[in-house]
Amino acid sequence: MSNHLDPVELAQALIAAPSISPATGSVFDVLEAALTPLGFTVERFIDGIEPDGPVENLLAVRAGKGPVHFGFAGHLDVVPPGVGWTSDAFVPEIRGDLLYGRGAVDMKGAIASFVAAAAATPAEAGTISLIITGDEEGPAIFGTRALMEHMDARGVRPDMIVVGEPTSVNRLGDMVKIGRRGSVNIWIDVPGTQGHVAYPHLADNPIPKLVRILAAIDAVSLDAGTDWFQPSNIEFTDIEVGNGATNVIPASARARLSIRFNDQHRGADLVAMVERLAQDVEPLAKVVGRISGEAFLTPPGELSGLVAEAIHAETDLMPEMSTTGGTSDARFLHALCPVVEFGLTNATMHKLDEAVAVDDLHKLTAIYRGILMRAFL
Amino acid sequence: MSNHLDPVELAQALIAAPSISPATGSVFDVLEAALTPLGFTVERFIDGIEPDGPVENLLAVRAGKGPVHFGFAGHLDVVPPGVGWTSDAFVPEIRGDLLYGRGAVDMKGAIASFVAAAAATPAEAGTISLIITGDEEGPAIFGTRALMEHMDARGVRPDMIVVGEPTSVNRLGDMVKIGRRGSVNIWIDVPGTQGHVAYPHLADNPIPKLVRILAAIDAVSLDAGTDWFQPSNIEFTDIEVGNGATNVIPASARARLSIRFNDQHRGADLVAMVERLAQDVEPLAKVVGRISGEAFLTPPGELSGLVAEAIHAETDLMPEMSTTGGTSDARFLHALCPVVEFGLTNATMHKLDEAVAVDDLHKLTAIYRGILMRAFL
Ligand SMILES: [Zn+2]
Ligand SMILES: [Zn+2]
Repeated sequence: MSNHLDPVELAQALIAAPSISPATGSVFDVLEAALTPLGFTVERFIDGIEPDGPVENLLAVRAGKGPVHFGFAGHLDVVPPGVGWTSDAFVPEIRGDLLYGRGAVDMKGAIASFVAAAAATPAEAGTISLIITGDEEGPAIFGTRALMEHMDARGVRPDMIVVGEPTSVNRLGDMVKIGRRGSVNIWIDVPGTQGHVAYPHLADNPIPKLVRILAAIDAVSLDAGTDWFQPSNIEFTDIEVGNGATNVIPASARARLSIRFNDQHRGADLVAMVERLAQDVEPLAKVVGRISGEAFLTPPGELSGLVAEAIHAETDLMPEMSTTGGTSDARFLHALCPVVEFGLTNATMHKLDEAVAVDDLHKLTAIYRGILMRAFL
Repeated sequence: MSNHLDPVELAQALIAAPSISPATGSVFDVLEAALTPLGFTVERFIDGIEPDGPVENLLAVRAGKGPVHFGFAGHLDVVPPGVGWTSDAFVPEIRGDLLYGRGAVDMKGAIASFVAAAAATPAEAGTISLIITGDEEGPAIFGTRALMEHMDARGVRPDMIVVGEPTSVNRLGDMVKIGRRGSVNIWIDVPGTQGHVAYPHLADNPIPKLVRILAAIDAVSLDAGTDWFQPSNIEFTDIEVGNGATNVIPASARARLSIRFNDQHRGADLVAMVERLAQDVEPLAKVVGRISGEAFLTPPGELSGLVAEAIHAETDLMPEMSTTGGTSDARFLHALCPVVEFGLTNATMHKLDEAVAVDDLHKLTAIYRGILMRAFL
């Protein structure tokens, strides 16, 4: 059996439940109310405390007869709307061809399309899980990782996962993400000895040392890219000395950098490299790294192939297989099984007047259904 | 004729009149009241408005019969006392051998000693001027420069000037300043294009450019010093980006540096050099310089010779002729005639519990008198 469910109506209902990250409550009620009649068993739990929590997570499973278990992952939390919307960000409004509202493309619209696709897919064809968090736009501490522990405890293990992030760029279906670069932020703190500029021999200026350290880092070329990844990239994002006095040699100087790296590197190695370059100049320099995620790749194969086929069948496009852009929860889910990301166009994500083409919600429903049918073949 | 005046009593009276920079009023009343009975004609005027003013200036002249005109320059303003004094900073207090109070060494004590020295010098021996401002510790906009205009208008032109700044280091008389390095602060502003670290090709990070500019400046060696000056020195004093977001490439980056330079350089040339180095890396970099003073030198000669003789006669020390340290109003006065700086020990200047040895006030009086007598010979 299969059911009809209108993805536009569900997207509107989800947008109408405000859910600035971290999210709990009514938006999950809306999703649960849509899934239960379709035969899904829904489990919800809340994790974390302020300021990064509480976070609600939802795991919905509909067991099928076929051997394949397909997972769909996403998030119901949204970034704050900001000021300047044409209409209320949390009152879904269709003007012309577009449905406006915070989360329309990132990613309540994609969740609605997937639920509609699941509704249109025979329940017996295969097992479907929805792995939905309320903490993707935030620090992601109590979100997908908590869900994965929960899945592990329940023995829920998909064979493949599609993450519904808005990967399309100009037209729905033009880009699929098969991996993401890793990301690490690194802080360098160079100590010195404060003093008066007229008596430099009594002081130890940390700024020239920091300049030498940054020049050494600036000279590093991490790699030339791979078949699937662009070259790894180092960006300096801040320098801070905080010395207001023109005649004072400061006591310390700090810099921060961000490295987006491909699968030829590990975050910890990059931190160690920066530490070595810093301490070559100043042995007392302190280097601290915070790894947001390691690089990962689902090499083009069965999963990306069936996603591309489903896209092509509905749009005539052959999607680019990309590893560009920022991080997503795919960095966690990749530990479970092959993961590919595919969703709506991202032009308005995180912006004022975020909007999705109504027609794209229907098309994405058809593509997701095509992916499910191909996965369950 | 000559009079007796106790430099300790006058120093106490000056300290008891609070005069945080910019200064006006009662502290000048105290000085005027001491000078008038000695035969000085005192002129006072107030210049400037908040926040750098109002500033009071005092010019006192006692015309002598001899052909020589000797000038003594100084300031009655003081830096703020700060918190933590053992006794009230503006209540002069003698404990043991020391007189405590803000300005005791910098430089109410030296002014008191000079007035006592003038009192003890026969009026007919030569012309004496006191050139005293209330704005030396501040931006010095309405102080000595205004006094020099006033002197010019009055036709008051000394043949030599001693500035009473606290130049002694360990013992009264161990150091005289015969020049000062110049000083310039330079700001470098590197523009860029803000963006997301995941999409560096859409941004233009100003930090690596700033690093390259600073590395180029760091590699500059201005000179190896001269007979009278230590090598010119460049110190980076601040870098500011102000970007709190770890995933953002900032829109601009700024640095500030301070150059203390000897008489082989001019401030404007140094600013032009920094501008050239900056614009070699980034043509749109903006460089702004603020010259606090040019380097100047009164080469060892008649004036420094008689100062050294007077010091040696009272202390048995042969003072070092130095050009070290920060700037002083000597940088302006140097335009008029030979200028030498000599005064009390500077160990406690600008510090908590600023204090002068009572004995040093008497000794400095004798030295200043010795200078006057030698100048008028
Ligand atoms: Zn998202
Ligand atoms: Zn002073």
